[in-house]
Amino acid sequence: MNSSQPDATHYAVIGRSLPRVDGVEKATGRARFAGDIHLPRMLRGAQLLSPVPHARVVAIDVRRASRVPGVRAILTGQDIPDVRIGPVKKDRYVIARDRVRFVGEPVAVVAAEDEDAADEALELVRVEYEPLPAVFDVHEALAPAAPTLHGESNVCRSERYIKGDVAEGFAAADLVIEDTFQTPMVEQCPLETQGAVACASPDGKVSVWASTQHPFFNRPTLAAVLGLPVNKVRIIAPHVGGAFGGKRELLCEPAAALLSMRTGRPVQLVFDRSEEFTCSTVRHPSSVRCKIGVTRDGRLTAFQATILLDTGAYSEIGGLVLIIATETAGGPYRIPHVLIEGSIVYTNNVVAGAFRGFGAVQSSFARESMLDIVAAEIGLDPLEFRLRNSLQDGDTNPTGERVSAPIIGEVLKAVGERNQRYESTLASNGRARGRGLACVAYTGGGYGYPDYCNAVVNVNEDGSATLLIGTPEVGTGSMSALCQIVAEELGLFYEGVSVEAADTEVTPFDYCGANASRITHLAGNAAKLAAAEAREQLFQLAAERLEVSPADLVARDGVVFARAFPAKTISIPALARESYYIHGAPITGRGLFSTVLDPKYRSSGRPRAYKTPVYLGQAVEIEIDPESGLIHVLKVCSVHDVGRAINPRNIVAQVEGGVAQGVGFALYEEMITRQGAVLNSNLLDYKLPGATEAFDIEAVIIESPDPNGPFGAKGMGELGILAIAPAIANAVYDALGVRLKTLPLTPERVLRALAQKRAATFRGER
Amino acid sequence: MNSSQPDATHYAVIGRSLPRVDGVEKATGRARFAGDIHLPRMLRGAQLLSPVPHARVVAIDVRRASRVPGVRAILTGQDIPDVRIGPVKKDRYVIARDRVRFVGEPVAVVAAEDEDAADEALELVRVEYEPLPAVFDVHEALAPAAPTLHGESNVCRSERYIKGDVAEGFAAADLVIEDTFQTPMVEQCPLETQGAVACASPDGKVSVWASTQHPFFNRPTLAAVLGLPVNKVRIIAPHVGGAFGGKRELLCEPAAALLSMRTGRPVQLVFDRSEEFTCSTVRHPSSVRCKIGVTRDGRLTAFQATILLDTGAYSEIGGLVLIIATETAGGPYRIPHVLIEGSIVYTNNVVAGAFRGFGAVQSSFARESMLDIVAAEIGLDPLEFRLRNSLQDGDTNPTGERVSAPIIGEVLKAVGERNQRYESTLASNGRARGRGLACVAYTGGGYGYPDYCNAVVNVNEDGSATLLIGTPEVGTGSMSALCQIVAEELGLFYEGVSVEAADTEVTPFDYCGANASRITHLAGNAAKLAAAEAREQLFQLAAERLEVSPADLVARDGVVFARAFPAKTISIPALARESYYIHGAPITGRGLFSTVLDPKYRSSGRPRAYKTPVYLGQAVEIEIDPESGLIHVLKVCSVHDVGRAINPRNIVAQVEGGVAQGVGFALYEEMITRQGAVLNSNLLDYKLPGATEAFDIEAVIIESPDPNGPFGAKGMGELGILAIAPAIANAVYDALGVRLKTLPLTPERVLRALAQKRAATFRGER
Repeated sequence: MNSSQPDATHYAVIGRSLPRVDGVEKATGRARFAGDIHLPRMLRGAQLLSPVPHARVVAIDVRRASRVPGVRAILTGQDIPDVRIGPVKKDRYVIARDRVRFVGEPVAVVAAEDEDAADEALELVRVEYEPLPAVFDVHEALAPAAPTLHGESNVCRSERYIKGDVAEGFAAADLVIEDTFQTPMVEQCPLETQGAVACASPDGKVSVWASTQHPFFNRPTLAAVLGLPVNKVRIIAPHVGGAFGGKRELLCEPAAALLSMRTGRPVQLVFDRSEEFTCSTVRHPSSVRCKIGVTRDGRLTAFQATILLDTGAYSEIGGLVLIIATETAGGPYRIPHVLIEGSIVYTNNVVAGAFRGFGAVQSSFARESMLDIVAAEIGLDPLEFRLRNSLQDGDTNPTGERVSAPIIGEVLKAVGERNQRYESTLASNGRARGRGLACVAYTGGGYGYPDYCNAVVNVNEDGSATLLIGTPEVGTGSMSALCQIVAEELGLFYEGVSVEAADTEVTPFDYCGANASRITHLAGNAAKLAAAEAREQLFQLAAERLEVSPADLVARDGVVFARAFPAKTISIPALARESYYIHGAPITGRGLFSTVLDPKYRSSGRPRAYKTPVYLGQAVEIEIDPESGLIHVLKVCSVHDVGRAINPRNIVAQVEGGVAQGVGFALYEEMITRQGAVLNSNLLDYKLPGATEAFDIEAVIIESPDPNGPFGAKGMGELGILAIAPAIANAVYDALGVRLKTLPLTPERVLRALAQKRAATFRGER
Repeated sequence: MNSSQPDATHYAVIGRSLPRVDGVEKATGRARFAGDIHLPRMLRGAQLLSPVPHARVVAIDVRRASRVPGVRAILTGQDIPDVRIGPVKKDRYVIARDRVRFVGEPVAVVAAEDEDAADEALELVRVEYEPLPAVFDVHEALAPAAPTLHGESNVCRSERYIKGDVAEGFAAADLVIEDTFQTPMVEQCPLETQGAVACASPDGKVSVWASTQHPFFNRPTLAAVLGLPVNKVRIIAPHVGGAFGGKRELLCEPAAALLSMRTGRPVQLVFDRSEEFTCSTVRHPSSVRCKIGVTRDGRLTAFQATILLDTGAYSEIGGLVLIIATETAGGPYRIPHVLIEGSIVYTNNVVAGAFRGFGAVQSSFARESMLDIVAAEIGLDPLEFRLRNSLQDGDTNPTGERVSAPIIGEVLKAVGERNQRYESTLASNGRARGRGLACVAYTGGGYGYPDYCNAVVNVNEDGSATLLIGTPEVGTGSMSALCQIVAEELGLFYEGVSVEAADTEVTPFDYCGANASRITHLAGNAAKLAAAEAREQLFQLAAERLEVSPADLVARDGVVFARAFPAKTISIPALARESYYIHGAPITGRGLFSTVLDPKYRSSGRPRAYKTPVYLGQAVEIEIDPESGLIHVLKVCSVHDVGRAINPRNIVAQVEGGVAQGVGFALYEEMITRQGAVLNSNLLDYKLPGATEAFDIEAVIIESPDPNGPFGAKGMGELGILAIAPAIANAVYDALGVRLKTLPLTPERVLRALAQKRAATFRGER
C-alpha cells in the first residue's frame, strides 16, 4: 500500500453517509432475488420433509407420485451420490438416505411443471418409517442411556479455555455466585426465504443462483454432492434479502441442482416460511452455567462457565459457534482465573447453525446477567462494577490473549452516561420503569482461521472503475463500503466505482463470504490493496508527465497531483486513456488479504474471536406493566467501537437492525416445539418486533482505528444484537427486583417471577 | 513464461482434435443466442428504416404511432444524445438526425409489448424527406460534380505504399500488362442475425447481451451514445451464431439500450434477414486496376495497383480495410518496384465494413488473376511463375518489410502438387474441366496496431481451472483452442479447464475482440501467460515438497514432477488444496499480451497486415457446362500455414467454412441494388452455396511454428476464403480460355465471355 494517500482527516469518500449502491434497485423493487429468477422451461422444485423426529427410513415408494401429470423427476437419498456434507463434521446427507433425525429433514425432492403438480406428487410419496427413540433436550441427550444420533455419544464437540486456576480464584473470592441461564431456539427470519435456481447445461456444467452468504465456500461441497469437479459448478448470489447466518448452508442448492441435472431443465426451489423455520438452521438453544468469584471491593477473582449448545440433528457450523461462545464467555474483563467449558450436543431438534452473534449472544446473556447479580450482592453500581474490571492496555483477556488499547472503558463510560439519563422509577401510569446495561467484546473481522479474500479493481478506459469481489451483498451495505474504500484509494468519486460481486465463475476467490463480520476487514483490505495496485499504474504514468516520483503523488477527486504542487493536476480519465490507447495496457489491480498470515493464528491453529476486537456497550430503558407482565422497550443506546466509520448511515442501519433483532430475542422470539416438531413456524405465531413495538435507538459511533483495518475500519454488523437481552434482563431487575434467567422475557415469566417474589417476600425472604 | 514445459514433440493437449467446449450445447440446441434471451417484462424493439438513399429529414411525426396500444416508446434522432460514432471516423448517428444517406438507415426506433404493436406503430410514423441527389458508384462518386455525403469530397480516406520506383520497374520489363477487376457487394450472412437485449436498471446501469464480436471495443462508444460512464455499461456476448466481420458495429445495442433506458424495461431488438442485409455492414465492393511488369524469363519487375473501395454511406472500419487491401495487394512475392494506392469512397449504398479477408479478398482476386494472365502471355506455368517470384528468407515484401523464412514456396509446392492431379480436359459429358490455383499472404495475428488482450486463469481448489477471457466465441472454436493452451501450459487435462468469456464487467479487458485472426495469437498468448503464472504458484509449492528448484519441474496430465525424477509426482489437486486451505492463497494467474510493444509497430505507427504472416495456397478443379455457363466446383485443396495446429479438426472446420464462403463469393453472391435499395435481401434471392453445390475439400496443414505464437500457433480463421475466387477464375480460363474479371462468375458472364471469345476468333483475334 502506498502511504502517500491523504490521512484520516482528509478523506474525500471515507466517513461520508453516501447512498448505497444497491439502494435504488431495492427501493424501486427492481432488485432480483433468487425467487425472482425465471429461466425458460424452468421447473418448480419441492421437498418432502420427515414428519417424525427420529426413524429409520425403511422404504420409499414414488411410483404413484411419478405418475402425476407434470412431474418430471423425483429423487430420494438413494438416487443421488452417497456423499455426506458438513462444514466441520460431515454428518449430513442433502436428502436423507436411510435415517431421518429431525422433523423437517428432506426425504425426497420433486421437480414438476408447477407447484400444484409438485405438491400433489409429494402427497403421493409413501415413506415407511421405523421410529427410533428421540431426544429433544441437551441434558437428556447427555444422559448415559440416551438414544444417540451419530455414533456412541451425543457430544458432537467440546471446547475448553483455561487461564490460571479457578479453584485458586474462587478461594480468593469474598463472594462466589453461581447460576444457570437458558436461551431458546430462534430463527434468523430473513425477509427473503432461502431459494435457488439451478440450471444444468448439456456440457455438464451446473449454474446455481442462490440466496447464499457463502458462494465460494459452498462451491466445492456442492460439486462433491453433484459428483462434479469445481470448474463445472457455478454459484451466483443475486440480491440476498437478509441472511444473519441462516444462509450459509447448502439447502436449496443441492436439490435444485440434482433435479436440474436429472431433468435437463432449470429448476427453482424456494422455501416457504415454514421450511425456512424447520429446514434452515436456527440459533443454538443454550444452557449456560456461570460461576463468578469477586472480592468485597468488586474485583473479579474467578470466572467459570459451562456452555451446552443444542446443535439439533446435525453439527453444521456448531463446532465454530461453540468456539466463539466459549471464547467470548468471559467478556471484556480482566479476570485472573478462568475456566470455560462447552459442548455442542446432538438432539432430534431442528438443526442449529450460524446466527448473528454466533454463540456470543448466548454466553453474553449469562455473563452480563450474572455481573448485575454480583454487583447487586456487593452493592456496587453495575457500571462502576464493570468499569472496575474492564480490560486495560496490556492485560490478558479471559482466554489469556494479550490485548492492546482496548477501548471498553470508553465504551462503558459512553453507554453508562446515557443509561444514567434513563428512568428507573414507577411511572405515573403505574408501570415500572427500569434501566440496564451490558457490554460485550467480539470480533470485527472474522475469526482468524484460514480466511482470505481476493479482489480485482479495473480502472476503465474513461477513468471509471469496477471492483470485482467474491463476497455477496446480503443486505448489509457492505458493497457500498467497499466502493467507498476503492474510491478513496484510487482518488475517484464514489459514483465512479461500480461493483460486481459473488459469482464463483468470474469474481475473485473469497473464502468465507458474508460471515463473521469479516467483509469490511477482509474484503475491505483486499479491495484496498487491489485499488492501490491499480493506482500505482496510474501513478507510473502521472509521474512521467509531472516529472516527479510516483511516491510523491496523491490521487483525489478524480485527479492526480504531486503533493508539493497541488495546482498542477492530471485527470485520471486522461491517464486511463493514455494507458489503454497509447501503452496498450488495461489498468487492473489485484489484492489478496489473508488472515492465514496472522502469526497468532499460525501459532495457535485455532480460531480467535478477538482477531480484530471490537467493543460494544448497550443500555436500555424499559417499562413494565405489572398487571400484564408486558415489557415495553422505550429507549436503547448502543455504543459501537467501529474502528473507522466508512459510512455512518450504514452503520446506524446495522445497529438498528441488530438492536431490533436483540429485542426480539430478548422479549418475543421462541420456536415452540413438541417432539421436535415446530409448532409456530410462521410469522403470525412467531413474534418479531414490529412497528407497534418501536422504540428510540441512539447509535453512538466511537472511532478507534484498527491498524490492520482498511482505513482503520472494523466490521460491526453483528454487534447490535449482542448485549440487548442481558441489558433488558438487568433493566427488568432494576424495575421490579426480579431476575429472569430464561429467554424470552415473556409476560408469563415476568408474572411468575413477580409471584415468586411476592411469595418469597411473604415468606420473609429478602 | 517458464521454458520447462515439454517441447513440441511431447505435447499432451496441443495438436489433438479434442471436442469443442461449446459443441454439446450447440449440437443439442441449448446454446442461447441473443434472440433466445428473454427477460421478464421484456419489450420488443423495431426500427423504421429510410426508404430513400439520400434526403434531408424535414420532420418526423410520431403522434399517431405513439397511440398504438402496447407501444411504450418511440425514439427519433432528436430524442437521443447528439453523439456521432465510428471506429475510424465519427460520421454516423445511431439514429439518423437530420439526414439519411442510405436505404436502410434507421430514422426511428420503437419499443412495444409485442412485434405486431411495434410494426403497426412504425407504419404510422410519418417522416417527411426532402430528397438529395445520390450516387451509387465509386467512379461517379469521385467525379467533380458528384453529390457529396460528408463534407467536400467523397474520398473518405486514401492510402499509398511505395517501394522502389515503378516507372523504373516498368521500364525494365519485357512485358507490361494492365487490367481492372471488380468484386461485388456481399453480405456475411451469419446464420444468426444480429440481436441485442438491453436492460437498464434503476441504478443507472445498462446491461446489453449482444451478438457481437467486439464487446470491449464497443463499450466506450456505447457508453458515449447513452451518455453514461463506462462503468455503467456492460456488454455481454452470449453464444454468437457466426460473425465474419459483420458483428463488429454497434447496430442493435444502442437502440435496445436507449429504448430500455426510456421505458425502464428490458428491450430486445433482433434483425430480420432483410435488416441483416441492409442495416448491417457488407463487404466493400471494389474496383482494382492492376499493372504488372515482367521480364521474358518470368521475373516480376514492377507491380502497381489502384484500389477503390465503396464504403457506402459511412466509413465504419473502412479505413482499416483499405490499409489491409492495399498492404496485401502485392501478395507473397519479391517485386523490386511497387506502387499501391487506394481510397475508400462514400456512396449512397449500404455501409461496408469488416468481412473475413478484410480487403485482401478484393486485392487478391485482381493480383492472382493478373498473374495467370501474365503467365499465359509469357508461356509459363502459373505455379512455376509464382514459385519463381515467391518471397525467400530475407527478402523484402511488396510493402518493403523484411520477411524471415516465409514458407510460401512450401505452400505453393504443396498446392501445386495437388493441382497437377486435377483434370484440365473436356469431360466425357461434354463439360469442360479446368484447374487453377492462387495464393495469398495474410495476417495470422491481428494487424499490429495497438491491440492487446488480458487473461486470468484460476486454478480452483480441486485442481480444475477456469480461464477468464474478454474475447467472444463467435463460432470459430477459439475458446476450445484457448482451453487447450491453458491445459497444456498448466499440465491439466483438457476437461479440467473451463472458460468464461466476453463479459465486459467481469472478464479481463480484451481490446479488439473476435477480429483479424487475432484470437489465437493475442488471446492465446495472454491465456498462456496467465496459465504460466498460475503454474508457477503450483511449482513453488511442489518445489518445496520435492526439494528441487521450480525451474526443474514439469506439469503434465494433472501431476507435477521433477524432470530428473518423473516417477515421483504430486497431483495438481493436492497442490491446489494445500494452497487454498493451508496457505490461504487462491491460485490465480494473469497474462497481458500486447502488440503495442511490437517495435515495428512502434516505429511505423501503422497497422501491419503481416505482423504474424501466414501463407495460403488454394487449388480448384471445376467443371463448366458450356451450354448453360454454369460452373461446378469439384475439388478444392487448401494449404494452410498455421504455425502450430492446436486443434486440427477445428482448423479443418475453419478451412471448410472459409472455402465455402469463397466459392459463394466467386460464383453466386451479389447484393443487387437499384438506387441504393437492395433487391435481394433474403436467402432465397441471394444465393449461398448449399448442399447441391457440395464439393470435396482437402485441407492441408503445414506447421511452421511462429516464435511469437502460443506454442507456435498462428490465427487462420480468415484464410480459407482468400484465394478461392482467383483460383476459380484461373480454372475458368484453363477450361475455356476466357478470362472473367468481374465477380461473381455467373453463367451469364461465362456465356457472354464465351460469345465474345467466339466473336474474336471469328474476327481472327487469338
